[in-house]
Amino acid sequence: MNLLIAERMQSVTPFYVMELLQRAQELQRQGRDIIHMEIGEPDFPTPEPILRAGERCLRERDIKYTPAAGLPELRQAIAEDYRRRHGVSVDWRRVFVTPGASGALLLAFACSVNPGETVMMADPGYPCNANFLRLLGAEARWVPVGAATAYQLNAALAGEYWLPRVRGVLTASPSNPAGSVLHEPELAALIAETERRGGVYYSDEIYQGLEYGPPLPTALSFSEQAFVINSFSKFYGMTGWRAGWLVAPEACAESVERLAQNLFLSTSTVAQYAALAAFAPETAPVLEARREEFRARRDFLYAGLLRLGFSVPLPPEGAFYVYADCRAFTEDSLVFARDLLERTGVAVTPGLDFDRHAGKYHLRFAYTASMDKMADGLTRLEKFLCR
Amino acid sequence: MNLLIAERMQSVTPFYVMELLQRAQELQRQGRDIIHMEIGEPDFPTPEPILRAGERCLRERDIKYTPAAGLPELRQAIAEDYRRRHGVSVDWRRVFVTPGASGALLLAFACSVNPGETVMMADPGYPCNANFLRLLGAEARWVPVGAATAYQLNAALAGEYWLPRVRGVLTASPSNPAGSVLHEPELAALIAETERRGGVYYSDEIYQGLEYGPPLPTALSFSEQAFVINSFSKFYGMTGWRAGWLVAPEACAESVERLAQNLFLSTSTVAQYAALAAFAPETAPVLEARREEFRARRDFLYAGLLRLGFSVPLPPEGAFYVYADCRAFTEDSLVFARDLLERTGVAVTPGLDFDRHAGKYHLRFAYTASMDKMADGLTRLEKFLCR
Repeated sequence: MNLLIAERMQSVTPFYVMELLQRAQELQRQGRDIIHMEIGEPDFPTPEPILRAGERCLRERDIKYTPAAGLPELRQAIAEDYRRRHGVSVDWRRVFVTPGASGALLLAFACSVNPGETVMMADPGYPCNANFLRLLGAEARWVPVGAATAYQLNAALAGEYWLPRVRGVLTASPSNPAGSVLHEPELAALIAETERRGGVYYSDEIYQGLEYGPPLPTALSFSEQAFVINSFSKFYGMTGWRAGWLVAPEACAESVERLAQNLFLSTSTVAQYAALAAFAPETAPVLEARREEFRARRDFLYAGLLRLGFSVPLPPEGAFYVYADCRAFTEDSLVFARDLLERTGVAVTPGLDFDRHAGKYHLRFAYTASMDKMADGLTRLEKFLCR
Repeated sequence: MNLLIAERMQSVTPFYVMELLQRAQELQRQGRDIIHMEIGEPDFPTPEPILRAGERCLRERDIKYTPAAGLPELRQAIAEDYRRRHGVSVDWRRVFVTPGASGALLLAFACSVNPGETVMMADPGYPCNANFLRLLGAEARWVPVGAATAYQLNAALAGEYWLPRVRGVLTASPSNPAGSVLHEPELAALIAETERRGGVYYSDEIYQGLEYGPPLPTALSFSEQAFVINSFSKFYGMTGWRAGWLVAPEACAESVERLAQNLFLSTSTVAQYAALAAFAPETAPVLEARREEFRARRDFLYAGLLRLGFSVPLPPEGAFYVYADCRAFTEDSLVFARDLLERTGVAVTPGLDFDRHAGKYHLRFAYTASMDKMADGLTRLEKFLCR
């Protein structure tokens, strides 16, 4: 036992994907041709208008701290985007710019979750969510879900799994790793059930915009008491800039601001000025074209995996992942993923990072690689399966 | 009572300086001429070579996630800087790039402090430190200090205030708000005392480089088990970029990396590439000239405040603050600061943000304003005192 290390570190989980990613990069340095389908990051560069706004900021402004809550004009632009996209009116003083969605999640949980409480979330789900709670002495209450509920929680499940110390419910729509979504009736019912029980609703909407069916609703349309987490990383192609946002209930705004002052001081000034251009008219067609490209890739990869014999019970409707049941080939996704990488140079993520109950027989394929690369990857995968 | 808000929020302290700052900005918008001596941010822009490196990054690179621990070349450059400046060898794999020193502090505490434990720190001191601990269910153990120990802890005080659940000792050298420092013998003795008692040493070195006597030591010269927090914000003039770093004990490196993956994903890519230029030969003379300017301002402000009748028992040796005892004029620094701002347009910070035991009769003056502005400020202050 290491006497320097706090007890909580025993339960903060590592990422298996990192092991795979590091090995893939190592093989690449050795000259191997690697197909990256393990990475949760778009392969597109930041859109030109956003880059140009970042450069302008560096040329024309002093790069000083902004207010802890973010640039007022960016908070206003985010609020305005909710009005335009969703027809919902959000007071911009409820919007807090954060260092990525990670910062937003930390603020939301730190503001509202007590030690010893739990937050209900779908298993499979994004693993960091639970680790933020551990920091605060709280825990995730994982609810195993599958294709039957589109890998999402619903009102019935929330009722079934509720316990006295459940603080609230967290959902992600579109979700990681399943790429599944919550449509309006299900979202509204789940929020209503959560609030009826006195719980707090946390809505992770970081993949919104990357949806391939009808536009997705925001939790803000159904509740003014929900915390909504979002980001410029995925849809707006700004991963490395580190800017996201939190919309908090009005009653929490003062607390969230106090936390932001203490925990972050402020979010990257360059990222904030660049992010203003995310809402510019000239950026919209770039984003739209990328969405269409992702849709085409989704169709291609989904069909390809089915053809090879993977089971994907429902086509993913958003984000950039296919979560495939690999029981036809293995019940140890980690060994399978390691083998696949070593023999074929195709990198994918074992479900273990996301999924406590069925991760051993799931793989996450990210379609953050070009069509050509994916086609190559599928060919290699097919050969691997037929060995 | 607000049912949405977690209990910890009752103890997360707000910043009085924010109230003053907002009021100062409001008066400024009304056309008043305001002298800002309340802000803990250098008035200099980011040095040109760093700005140019940031622009180059935007032009030439994809702004993608970096590894959670930071760009290897930046971690290596930081390690190399310890060798060059301090003659101490630091394995670069112990260096973690973080979103500002705030991120570094969160990693250090989250990795090593258990709920119910305390970390000893000087009162007065930087208020956020204690709020990070509250997040983790831990607390600050404040030790009242004054001019007798240069507003710093020492080995004797550490022994006197030690309790079974003290996890370790945090110092800042140079310190905020006092601008006082720990020289080699005192630092070495305090680290030895801390480790002799089984405690962990946390060394906040974010103002290093901004010292006006002999170069200050780093805790890394005396212990491989210390956590060292530092930043590109103050000395390197990169506040709005949000990049800092943590040096962790080797035994904690894996835990720190896991936390960074979960809590941040990564630090701003633009900031990291720009920060590489912080160590470039062409940046050094810019930083040296600024240090000399700060030294001259320190001398001017220190002498000016003494002349007006404030008590400053020892000249500050670093950072950019003078912490002045104002009992000759008031025992309510908050009322005094508000009054001063309204009547004269001079903004300063009441000690209350930093100081639980003597904040009511201290003011922090930041010399982050030009000589001319400070001269004007002192003239207004003198008139205010003679009213």
